[in-house]
Amino acid sequence: MKSLTEHLWFETPHRRDYLNITDTVEKLVRKSGVQEGLCLVNAMHITASVFVNDDERGLHADFERWLEKLAPEKPHSAYDHNRTGEDNADAHLKRTIMGREVVVAVTDGKLDLGPWEQIFYGEFDGMRKKRVLVKIIGE
Amino acid sequence: MKSLTEHLWFETPHRRDYLNITDTVEKLVRKSGVQEGLCLVNAMHITASVFVNDDERGLHADFERWLEKLAPEKPHSAYDHNRTGEDNADAHLKRTIMGREVVVAVTDGKLDLGPWEQIFYGEFDGMRKKRVLVKIIGE
Amino acid sequence: MKSLTEHLWFETPHRRDYLNITDTVEKLVRKSGVQEGLCLVNAMHITASVFVNDDERGLHADFERWLEKLAPEKPHSAYDHNRTGEDNADAHLKRTIMGREVVVAVTDGKLDLGPWEQIFYGEFDGMRKKRVLVKIIGE
Repeated sequence: MKSLTEHLWFETPHRRDYLNITDTVEKLVRKSGVQEGLCLVNAMHITASVFVNDDERGLHADFERWLEKLAPEKPHSAYDHNRTGEDNADAHLKRTIMGREVVVAVTDGKLDLGPWEQIFYGEFDGMRKKRVLVKIIGE
Repeated sequence: MKSLTEHLWFETPHRRDYLNITDTVEKLVRKSGVQEGLCLVNAMHITASVFVNDDERGLHADFERWLEKLAPEKPHSAYDHNRTGEDNADAHLKRTIMGREVVVAVTDGKLDLGPWEQIFYGEFDGMRKKRVLVKIIGE
Repeated sequence: MKSLTEHLWFETPHRRDYLNITDTVEKLVRKSGVQEGLCLVNAMHITASVFVNDDERGLHADFERWLEKLAPEKPHSAYDHNRTGEDNADAHLKRTIMGREVVVAVTDGKLDLGPWEQIFYGEFDGMRKKRVLVKIIGE
């Protein structure tokens, strides 16, 4: 069995951002030498997400509005978590909706993605350094 | 290490449908010959879901009403994504709630599911051909 | 390839509870002898969740309020599923938001978690015996 472990670092310019990381993950799959296996990609921070969806700007604007409706950032005082000195309780909830991780099949040495599937890093409490873990196992 | 990769094709008669695919996945586990491992089942389209829940018709009606409340289909003009000529922005959001994938343990050559756990294909923009990926790895 | 399969049993004192199971899962990783691999942790019941988030009491209170807003328990009669004699339709929906499973990388024989990542069992229909599956594969 082969395995590869890598960390990707991000520091986004805004509180919330969506970054397409598909090419970066694809390069790591090649580097791993795995032909058949699984690739786990997960946020290592609990106010960020890794998810698969479409690389379409309008959809990302829809996500932004929708997540603000389901889990509004303000008022910060609406959340018990923010009494700890944080202001990011909403980011914990938004990331819960979007998901912590994706597991993608590796087939013939490549990410086995559908035609529109792209892997995104979803940041909900940015402007600080944060990590994503990529773990690939297989043969 | 053994592995198996298969695609399941669906073309549902309605825009939204829930199909129990547990038996199909179970057969693929047997076909793979894997005794101990992991089975990934994921939608390859970003307006569909694979999830685990109960095979109970009332619950599925509840899902339908609930998802329409959290991410209504109409008005189509409420979503930026629909300016691209699509009308399926709501399907991207509904699938986000329901999840892209499940990972199920394979133990003693079988899906290691709890008593009521069933694997579903959740379609949110149907009446077209779409695929699910099943990837099984292990020994 | 090595693998380990274990069940964790829970019977929570309340209908809804959040239990930190990180240490228990970490011990199973050591027991497995796996140095590089993947660890799947999933609820085996469809009204419970396994998720990763912060071990902070205020946040858990925020989750409780938020989930009640998105998928209220009452009135029980609002849900078709409850016509089967159950009163737990809301628990199926809440667990859908929170997620069935997490997949965590195993690196150097340990759970490869970020600084604040903790693994939780989320119970939404408790006061009965329920199981979580831990499956570890790797080398």
